[in-house]
Amino acid sequence: MSHDCVFCKIIKGEIPCTRLYEDQDVLAFMDIHPVVKGHALVIPKTHHNPLMETPPEVLQKLITVVQRIAQAQMKGLQADGINVSQANGAIAGQVVPHIHFHVIPRFTTDGYHGNWLPRKYDNPQELQAIADRIREAIQ
Amino acid sequence: MSHDCVFCKIIKGEIPCTRLYEDQDVLAFMDIHPVVKGHALVIPKTHHNPLMETPPEVLQKLITVVQRIAQAQMKGLQADGINVSQANGAIAGQVVPHIHFHVIPRFTTDGYHGNWLPRKYDNPQELQAIADRIREAIQ
Repeated sequence: MSHDCVFCKIIKGEIPCTRLYEDQDVLAFMDIHPVVKGHALVIPKTHHNPLMETPPEVLQKLITVVQRIAQAQMKGLQADGINVSQANGAIAGQVVPHIHFHVIPRFTTDGYHGNWLPRKYDNPQELQAIADRIREAIQ
Repeated sequence: MSHDCVFCKIIKGEIPCTRLYEDQDVLAFMDIHPVVKGHALVIPKTHHNPLMETPPEVLQKLITVVQRIAQAQMKGLQADGINVSQANGAIAGQVVPHIHFHVIPRFTTDGYHGNWLPRKYDNPQELQAIADRIREAIQ
C-alpha cells in the first residue's frame, strides 16, 4: 500500500468507487471519467507501478480479469468492440501511479474517434537499428 | 492457423517481419507502421481473436512478453514511458483479426498526442445502472 495513492485508498475503502468485481488480488471498478460510458479500470490490490516493475504473476491475474470485464461489457452492454489501454509515465497519459488497465466498451454510436496516426521509418535501416536496440535489451 | 490471416502468415514465415523475441507460444515483432518509432506487436502463435475469446493461459503468456518488450524499450531506447494498447473490433480500431498487443515506447519529444477525452455520466444513477449491467454479465 502507498499512503498517497488514490487507488490504494479505493482498495482500502477510504475513497468510494462503484465495484464491478473483486477477488483476493484484483479489483475492477467504474472509471468516473469515462472515455465511453461503461469504461472500467482493473487494478491489483497490492501497489505496483509501472507495468515494467509489476511482478509477472500479478500481471497474469490482472489480464484474466480484464478479459472477464471485456466479456461482460460485450454481453451486458451489447458493445460492438473493446479497447484495452494501459499507460506508463506522464508522457503516456498515466495519471494515477498504480498500475491499471482501462477496459473501454465501444459502440458504433459512441462518437469517439482516436487519433491513432501510423508513421513511417525513414528507411529500412532505421527500423532495423531500432529493433536491434530493443532486442539487445530484452531480458 | 487461419489461412487468410496476415499474422499467421508472419508466424509461418510467409510474410517477413523484424522479430524481436519469440518462444514456443509468442512472437514479438516490429510494427512497420509505428505510432512512435520502436512500436512493437506481441501475438500468440496460435490463431485467436478477439481478446474475449482467447484462452486465459494464452493471455497470460502474452502479457509477460508485453512486459519484457516494454522493459527492453525503456532500457534499449531510453524511452520516457510506454503505452500498451489492445483493440477488439473495427470500431475499436482493430485491423488484423488475430489478437495482438501494441507496445509503444513514448518520448517527451515524440510529438504524439492522443485524444483521450474523458466524459461524464449524465447523473450518478446512470453510472450505477451501467455498472449493474456489466456486473450481472460477469462470468
